[in-house]
Amino acid sequence: MRVAASQLSRQVEEILRAWGMSAEHARITAARLHHADIRGIDSHGVALLTLYSQLRAEGRINFQPAVRVLRDSPVTALIDADHALGQVPSTQAMQLAIDKCGQSGLAAVAVRNSNHFGAAGAYALMAAEAGLVGLAFTSVWNLSIVPTFGADPMFGTNPIAFAAPGKRHRVFHLDMATSTVAIGKLRLAELHGRPIEPGWALDAAGQVTTDPGIALESRRLTPLGGTRQLGSHKGYGLAAMVEILCTMLAGAWYAATREARHPDEQHVNIGHFFLAIDPKSFRAAGEFEQDLDDMIDALHGCRRADPGQPVLVAGDPEAQAMEERGSLGIPVPEALLAQLRSIAAECRAAWQLG
Amino acid sequence: MRVAASQLSRQVEEILRAWGMSAEHARITAARLHHADIRGIDSHGVALLTLYSQLRAEGRINFQPAVRVLRDSPVTALIDADHALGQVPSTQAMQLAIDKCGQSGLAAVAVRNSNHFGAAGAYALMAAEAGLVGLAFTSVWNLSIVPTFGADPMFGTNPIAFAAPGKRHRVFHLDMATSTVAIGKLRLAELHGRPIEPGWALDAAGQVTTDPGIALESRRLTPLGGTRQLGSHKGYGLAAMVEILCTMLAGAWYAATREARHPDEQHVNIGHFFLAIDPKSFRAAGEFEQDLDDMIDALHGCRRADPGQPVLVAGDPEAQAMEERGSLGIPVPEALLAQLRSIAAECRAAWQLG
Repeated sequence: MRVAASQLSRQVEEILRAWGMSAEHARITAARLHHADIRGIDSHGVALLTLYSQLRAEGRINFQPAVRVLRDSPVTALIDADHALGQVPSTQAMQLAIDKCGQSGLAAVAVRNSNHFGAAGAYALMAAEAGLVGLAFTSVWNLSIVPTFGADPMFGTNPIAFAAPGKRHRVFHLDMATSTVAIGKLRLAELHGRPIEPGWALDAAGQVTTDPGIALESRRLTPLGGTRQLGSHKGYGLAAMVEILCTMLAGAWYAATREARHPDEQHVNIGHFFLAIDPKSFRAAGEFEQDLDDMIDALHGCRRADPGQPVLVAGDPEAQAMEERGSLGIPVPEALLAQLRSIAAECRAAWQLG
Repeated sequence: MRVAASQLSRQVEEILRAWGMSAEHARITAARLHHADIRGIDSHGVALLTLYSQLRAEGRINFQPAVRVLRDSPVTALIDADHALGQVPSTQAMQLAIDKCGQSGLAAVAVRNSNHFGAAGAYALMAAEAGLVGLAFTSVWNLSIVPTFGADPMFGTNPIAFAAPGKRHRVFHLDMATSTVAIGKLRLAELHGRPIEPGWALDAAGQVTTDPGIALESRRLTPLGGTRQLGSHKGYGLAAMVEILCTMLAGAWYAATREARHPDEQHVNIGHFFLAIDPKSFRAAGEFEQDLDDMIDALHGCRRADPGQPVLVAGDPEAQAMEERGSLGIPVPEALLAQLRSIAAECRAAWQLG
């Protein structure tokens, strides 16, 4: 079943309002989920409502938060999300970074006391759409990435998003977890009864496994690189860098020690970090965008290893999905539709999807 | 043969001065090479003089540069390196970022018209030693990283360095190429007659090779991740991000199109990008460092996959090498010693190494 993007967003807003969100907050949150759905990033779109419903049941989300700016300077700010879902405080944070960057040429905003914020790429893109280079990072409360030589997970999938505006071309748009793969890839392999690649995941003893069932049970992902031989210490280093920017700089809680240090807290207090850079701080107007276009052209023109597979640039698969889904609608699998229906029924939200 | 670090630095300074550098510039450049030698990063220490000697012979380096600040704001600056070796303009650039960050809490400085700057980690560390979070990036003029699905290299090894200060612990210190491995690892495998890991390098057609001879001949490295299945599109995305920060933002030349666009130029015009973030923009004094210490402790305490191999934190191997080399001196292999002797003889630099 395919659903028009606007119809799906209305359904999301209905549910979020039924959960107690203001109309304005529901609209912003739905827009951030739509960012992922329209680009084919199915794990970070409307499917997140099943996760959010669970977090709501556990009392971990404040749906009527008083998001506050705790510290403020011409180029930096610190925002307290008051245990909101991450989309609203993160949208405010990146908008604040964009505004400050418009004045100063560079800005960074950190967020604490937050929750899951959806796709990191949505926030980096906000900056690029304002003509700036944008970076977005988040810590994650549930552990999955195991350090090189380790047996237990010590980080979430700690993503890095980066976006930069072109002129002829759309933006360069990178949005990547610092794990080798996402948990979703393990589920897909199990569903199809296929082994997983050695280097994707580990068993409970920290050893490489190719069995998706064992990998899902142990919930242990490798850092980008997969194995020590292929550079997993680099992915591990990047995951730690993201944690430092989002947790230590923002004053959030480090997920690996949270339960020991805050045993009675139902909140997770994850952090985010946003950076905006104005190309005009360094280049004359238009030069940066022109040079970025040229790089994108050169990459698209790169000689191919397989004549049938063109070389892609970060954001290309998402742009293609956006074109298709914009005209045909968002595919919503039966199982997800049933979950959404049950979520809507439980909170008495109006049902919009037929 | 082992040489005391100070003695090795004196030899480096003698050669650089014989090449026409001022005493001050030679001292700074030698200090940046020493950073790598003392930490066991042998590829980026005194061994670089063989590369620099070659670049000098090709007329690509200006040893008496007029490094200038082209653009300047309270939080950003753009530096023209005047075709200097990268160490002096990069040291100035990071120092400028540190000074601005001390005033404003955040600063970014870009450099254009530069050359090889040694180890990226040296500049990130400057910020951490000033109590700041530091990031350093550089583009690279000789191509090696092949995009996912591509057959030709489109980026250099485009490194990312990140450093953050702890309190009890030394700094967290990440310095990584965005390729899976460095060219040096291919040379080592060839030397030992061992095959290389599948996923390290490609042949001239862009196909995976395990033959180090073929890999060295084709000079085609994979992006971090190694293969599409193990996430090489992420390493490729990071390499492109580094290129955008260093080349497009700084107004340097993109290496993959340089020869076509600037066929008569002997200079390579690579760029660097430096960022400094003051933790006190977001946290009370000491809180950041305390939280970082806690994370480092937790990582060191992570359960091990192999009882004999502790979990390391970025910078640990370098700290260990620093301890050993600080007391025993820097090992200088015979072949390198012979090269240095010949370089010194050629430019009539005093010979300091016995």
